[in-house]
Amino acid sequence: MSQIKYPETNNRELKKYSNQYRDELLNSIIPFWLNNSKDNLCGGYFTCLDRKGKVYDSDKFMWLQGREVWLFSMIYNRIEKKQEWLDMAKHGASFMEKFGMDSESDWYFSLTRDGKPLVQPYNIFSDCFAAMAFSELYKAEMNPKHKAIALNTFNNIVKRQDNPKGKYNKVYPGTRPLKSFSLPMILCNLSLVMEDILGSEYVNNSIRPLISEVMDVFYDEESGLILENVTPDGYFSDSYEGRLINPGHTNEAMWFIMDLAMRINDRDLIDKCIVILLRSIKNGWDEKYGGIFYFKDIKGHPVQQLEWDQKLWWVHIETLISLAKGYRLTGNEECRKWFEVIHNYTWNHFRDPEFPEWYGYLNRQGDPLLELKGGKWKGCFHVPRGLYELWKILE
Amino acid sequence: MSQIKYPETNNRELKKYSNQYRDELLNSIIPFWLNNSKDNLCGGYFTCLDRKGKVYDSDKFMWLQGREVWLFSMIYNRIEKKQEWLDMAKHGASFMEKFGMDSESDWYFSLTRDGKPLVQPYNIFSDCFAAMAFSELYKAEMNPKHKAIALNTFNNIVKRQDNPKGKYNKVYPGTRPLKSFSLPMILCNLSLVMEDILGSEYVNNSIRPLISEVMDVFYDEESGLILENVTPDGYFSDSYEGRLINPGHTNEAMWFIMDLAMRINDRDLIDKCIVILLRSIKNGWDEKYGGIFYFKDIKGHPVQQLEWDQKLWWVHIETLISLAKGYRLTGNEECRKWFEVIHNYTWNHFRDPEFPEWYGYLNRQGDPLLELKGGKWKGCFHVPRGLYELWKILE
Repeated sequence: MSQIKYPETNNRELKKYSNQYRDELLNSIIPFWLNNSKDNLCGGYFTCLDRKGKVYDSDKFMWLQGREVWLFSMIYNRIEKKQEWLDMAKHGASFMEKFGMDSESDWYFSLTRDGKPLVQPYNIFSDCFAAMAFSELYKAEMNPKHKAIALNTFNNIVKRQDNPKGKYNKVYPGTRPLKSFSLPMILCNLSLVMEDILGSEYVNNSIRPLISEVMDVFYDEESGLILENVTPDGYFSDSYEGRLINPGHTNEAMWFIMDLAMRINDRDLIDKCIVILLRSIKNGWDEKYGGIFYFKDIKGHPVQQLEWDQKLWWVHIETLISLAKGYRLTGNEECRKWFEVIHNYTWNHFRDPEFPEWYGYLNRQGDPLLELKGGKWKGCFHVPRGLYELWKILE
Repeated sequence: MSQIKYPETNNRELKKYSNQYRDELLNSIIPFWLNNSKDNLCGGYFTCLDRKGKVYDSDKFMWLQGREVWLFSMIYNRIEKKQEWLDMAKHGASFMEKFGMDSESDWYFSLTRDGKPLVQPYNIFSDCFAAMAFSELYKAEMNPKHKAIALNTFNNIVKRQDNPKGKYNKVYPGTRPLKSFSLPMILCNLSLVMEDILGSEYVNNSIRPLISEVMDVFYDEESGLILENVTPDGYFSDSYEGRLINPGHTNEAMWFIMDLAMRINDRDLIDKCIVILLRSIKNGWDEKYGGIFYFKDIKGHPVQQLEWDQKLWWVHIETLISLAKGYRLTGNEECRKWFEVIHNYTWNHFRDPEFPEWYGYLNRQGDPLLELKGGKWKGCFHVPRGLYELWKILE
């Protein structure tokens, strides 16, 4: 790969951006979801919202229901005790509690507007975001019912983690067993979110193995990058799945690991995260049009994912969080320079200059591929979480 | 939708293109697969081939194994009794027969290079292409073993058709039952390919219900277009799946139906196909960059498929077949004009001027998104079948 060229940047510190992130969060993003996503008739949230915030589909996706409950609980807990925010969180939680689980307490993937199950609980991340949601809401009100749901869901995740898709798993057993990076990555974050409920001792004991899973097992020595799928022993598999690189996942995981590193006061681990982060950004950066690719093949072969060259909102926002954290923790100049590059790309391309909330999906050239502000996978989560994290880190 | 503007075309007939399609088939496409896809060590075919034909992945996908067996059998049966072509077909068939089925005789979705099962038989189209393959091979050699496999597979398809994914179906039963256009569409084609085996009486009896399924049940009165998914009674469902339009599927189905119409000598049905075909092309045409979109939402809402704006090889080739058939059968001038437009787009964008075989995946702008000539879904099928059909129709 050729030398990355930085654009001209000035030397003022990143701090200047803090207010920009705060104002966008409080004046554009939060009001957008408060005004448009609440389903007053059936409960829960609409998430399929067009450019102006109008509902174009009313299905309820459990990932996004959980994430929005978490987000409104989190800003209530951390920014300000606004009753409106707590009410919004409880509005979603009560819909989830009423309709979201099957008889085994596993979370459905999606429901109709009025809560009838549409897609079975084949997807363990529905459970991860539900656990996050009820843990954060529990911190707001200390309602033991919320704690019980969070804990029970967490225990189900642990039980299911070796075969997350259960009977819906189409992979023939034994031929080419692979494990996926997404779950350990999310557990890194979830274990900190749930510390109040799981207890510090549990979290202390689980941190090291989780870090090792991300930084050793999924880490590929040869390339210095993180693989999306590896053999159960952590080896490279020369297959479509095994060759897959998801720069956004890697970059997001690095701030989760930096958070754990701060918790256990491991300076070397932070440095290691920054090395991987910067390598991953350089590897994922589109030198022709700017922005970070969605998928790559580690050997440069064609990927299966036709959307590989698109630029996704969460990839860029999560990368900014990691860069800002890395810079604040170490003063690493390369983090600062890359922050400026990706900050400019993000605000110039993802932010809609006319209407609130950001675009989620850009084509390779950086123009909106879909004008939606929310859909089946984009909800009230990465944009506001990122804006909050960046406001606070840069402050 | 605004008026479609045709480019300047001359008035010579389409016949002039016949040799172009034949020469490309015989001098570029067939040699490409003969030279690059045969796995002499383990049997079966490689289909993951890069721009120059080099293998980049060795997994064996049953859709593509079956399709390549069919293709080499078909050109042996219809073009010339070349031993090399028959041997190539039998090479793939013997691998399929040995490794392709589970204990219920359902076809796996994919195998490793040496035939170990990788992905379970969740996908009924593996069975459809296997039935096509062994039926066409049976015509070449009249080997009763091939007939038995074809017939047994066809019976399994009929048995599974109401719940094709079986236990891997993640849709919660009863809430929003939908059926998909792909299966009846492929059965239209399969029933003619298998006529020798199924018998004319069976085919005669099944034609009318199949035509009605495509032209009534999946046909949307309001838009005059074909829907990808409808309720069991053939009604529109206002959901992501229900709003989905796949212009390539519609256009391909129209030549399958025209073939059936010729078989039952139904002139009105041919005219009806042409009306739907032309409407579907105008609806799917990208007025900005040319080419036909991969997916659209019938209400103009955002689709789930991030690849919606890409231009795929099979969409354009299948559309050309329908237009050529429509023109030959009726002399419809609009078919001829659109044929010229899509012929030019296809040859200018999908054909690789430097190396044999065609690109499969272009971005919206019409440039290659992936440089592969074969992959997990693109094999020795749509390009050579299309070139053969077009050569013969235009001749």
